Amino acid sequence: MRMYDLILKKRNNQKLTQEEIDFIVSGYIKNTIPDYQISALLMSIYFNGMNYEEISCLTRSMLYSGKIFNFSFVDKPKIDKHSTGGVGDGVSLSLAPIVASCDICVPMISGRGLGHTGGTLDKLESIPGFKVNLTEQEIITQLKKIGVVISSQTDNLVPADKKLYALRDTTATVDSIPLIASSIMSKKLAEGIDGLLLDVKTGNGAFMEKMADAVKLAKTMVDIGKKFNKKVVALITDMNQPLGEYIGNMLEIYQTIKILKNEGPKDITKLVIFESAKMLQLAGVEKNFVSAKKKVEQQIISAKALEKFKQLVEFQHGNPKIIDEPKLLPQAKYCEPVLSQKEGYVSFIDTKLVGTACCVLGAGRQKLGDQIDYSVGMRIIKKLNDYVEKNEPLVYIYFNDKTKFEQTKNMVLNAYKISLKKTILPKLVYKEIY
Amino acid sequence: MRMYDLILKKRNNQKLTQEEIDFIVSGYIKNTIPDYQISALLMSIYFNGMNYEEISCLTRSMLYSGKIFNFSFVDKPKIDKHSTGGVGDGVSLSLAPIVASCDICVPMISGRGLGHTGGTLDKLESIPGFKVNLTEQEIITQLKKIGVVISSQTDNLVPADKKLYALRDTTATVDSIPLIASSIMSKKLAEGIDGLLLDVKTGNGAFMEKMADAVKLAKTMVDIGKKFNKKVVALITDMNQPLGEYIGNMLEIYQTIKILKNEGPKDITKLVIFESAKMLQLAGVEKNFVSAKKKVEQQIISAKALEKFKQLVEFQHGNPKIIDEPKLLPQAKYCEPVLSQKEGYVSFIDTKLVGTACCVLGAGRQKLGDQIDYSVGMRIIKKLNDYVEKNEPLVYIYFNDKTKFEQTKNMVLNAYKISLKKTILPKLVYKEIY
Repeated sequence: MRMYDLILKKRNNQKLTQEEIDFIVSGYIKNTIPDYQISALLMSIYFNGMNYEEISCLTRSMLYSGKIFNFSFVDKPKIDKHSTGGVGDGVSLSLAPIVASCDICVPMISGRGLGHTGGTLDKLESIPGFKVNLTEQEIITQLKKIGVVISSQTDNLVPADKKLYALRDTTATVDSIPLIASSIMSKKLAEGIDGLLLDVKTGNGAFMEKMADAVKLAKTMVDIGKKFNKKVVALITDMNQPLGEYIGNMLEIYQTIKILKNEGPKDITKLVIFESAKMLQLAGVEKNFVSAKKKVEQQIISAKALEKFKQLVEFQHGNPKIIDEPKLLPQAKYCEPVLSQKEGYVSFIDTKLVGTACCVLGAGRQKLGDQIDYSVGMRIIKKLNDYVEKNEPLVYIYFNDKTKFEQTKNMVLNAYKISLKKTILPKLVYKEIY
Repeated sequence: MRMYDLILKKRNNQKLTQEEIDFIVSGYIKNTIPDYQISALLMSIYFNGMNYEEISCLTRSMLYSGKIFNFSFVDKPKIDKHSTGGVGDGVSLSLAPIVASCDICVPMISGRGLGHTGGTLDKLESIPGFKVNLTEQEIITQLKKIGVVISSQTDNLVPADKKLYALRDTTATVDSIPLIASSIMSKKLAEGIDGLLLDVKTGNGAFMEKMADAVKLAKTMVDIGKKFNKKVVALITDMNQPLGEYIGNMLEIYQTIKILKNEGPKDITKLVIFESAKMLQLAGVEKNFVSAKKKVEQQIISAKALEKFKQLVEFQHGNPKIIDEPKLLPQAKYCEPVLSQKEGYVSFIDTKLVGTACCVLGAGRQKLGDQIDYSVGMRIIKKLNDYVEKNEPLVYIYFNDKTKFEQTKNMVLNAYKISLKKTILPKLVYKEIY
């Protein structure tokens, strides 16, 4: 088999077989196929796509490029959740302990911030002492003891994806549905889970801006799940405005604690409860959605979920005192409002621009290797269809560098459109695909 | 400027500027842009194409990546010819001396066999002693003395094309019109010529199988020529059957001598005269095509063209005795006919398959670095619309390895279609584009 012929085949829009994809992935891992042939193939996949069969084959090849976790010693359903990412999407932070408090094992392998969106690991690292780089043995021990872990990818988990992702990142081949789907699914399947909830975000702050793309990605991933005999449900959720009230690392940890104390913002709390209940259903521990939702609400009200969050923080060497003393989290020096320049209804928010502004503040990386400032971010005061007076705050900015305040203030003002008329409010959850 | 953004731009079907293309080409030459980013860009160009402006920019960048010959010391029009390649297309071998014998300077930089087609340099190397790797100084001296040279590309001529071509060859990005056109034209413009005749072949034995693609490539190259203020004419010619009677290296040299002795096969002789006359017109040495054609015919009949060929062979260290003693050329051990299995008219010849069969015999390379057997090849007895009896020879195969005879015999039988009805005979020259 020659790599040249396989590039030609994909370029000519023919289908690759499992054997051919195995040859490509294993050759790449073993360095017998050079980067420049792989990048030509990736670009062909970007243009010609892959059918479900090929995407499953690619997922399988990547999955078996490394170790697959076996948590069969845990006598509980093993369920995880993945979000394609958005602005203010800190759902996993409260969802994982809620679901784990319901006697479900949550072996969550998470990522860092990507582009204008934040990352679960970065947010957790804003907790003093919190350790996200766990060894396989640490993951196993923690799952046995408390049933939940949020860790970075270990070295031997899907190494093909690590190498391919780095190449995609430099060759403009990231935003390809077959490549996104196989990357996400190979990592999630390597966790040795029984079921998976996918949150595919759509809207102006999401990677899949168009609904049709979001649905296609969701269907693709659900289909891969089926091929591997896993229970997978995908939700298409809105990202036409930031989720919740806070954006930024320590700010989203602060908000997580509020959610778990039943004091969280309405929209994100509602989504956390919805998604947690879906996971209880996937685990088969509740017979229907209504009872699952009630169970989730009880776990919050009874503070059992908060207790599980505390265990998670303690086990991963974080300071659990932050739960009652949020001042122990990194604090920004300044907090200033962005005042509306006119009155009217918030009819549009350029969510990506708001996310990018947070990165400029230092909450995310502008380039690989950038240091994150855990303390900075924004509090979103006005959301879609809220009425705002002239000179009333739209957003509060938490910052350490005064020059960055001016810059991000203007970005926020550009992101907000204030009109005389209200807009049609987007739904929180659009669709469920299974 | 970041290479990533330029890949993204081309991938999203936006146009690249001269500055951006200069950045890419010079970065690639200086090794500051890695192969894997270039190959991703090349694949994007394959899919999205380039407009005339971009192709001219790419040609310019490549052209200025190295040295441009300056033959202004030669007080004659400097005209060259390039063919996109076909089976039995040895036109350049007789055309170059014919044109040079008319007091035109022909600084021909040629290539080797590519895929199923032969290469001018390989054919010349079948002449004992013939040297094709000339230095710039040798080229200059020879042009001054005899007005014609057929050489391989020198190291400092269009180095960007050499590097890009090697990458295209391993990443399935060879057959892209913008990349072919800029590759050919940058090399030809670097010869410092005044005018260029392009022979773009179309049909089942050509790289541009479809007429529309051939016309597009021809128009693209003519347009580039105009941008660089060169007189460029492109002919679209037929490649639905092998050209002439002989295919193979020494066999095409043998045929060249026959053409120059006015004993050549009808079709190729006609094309050689046609193209030579076009070059005389391009050079401005004849006022119209009729007089140019007459002049070319005289050069053949008077043996002045043959004399120029002899000079060329002598100057490049080849043995000129081959002209009168063809036995001095490498001889194959065996020559056997391929007999028709039925009677009727030759209604179709899979020309690419015939060319590939010649490569299998050893006349071309099956992979890089393969040694060529200069003696082997085929003599085509029956061409389109010829009547053939059962057991009458279609082709004679010249070979050294008996196992290869059986294999190539079957390829020839598969390539020929014998029918009760004649087909529509293809024209020799379809179109002229300028």
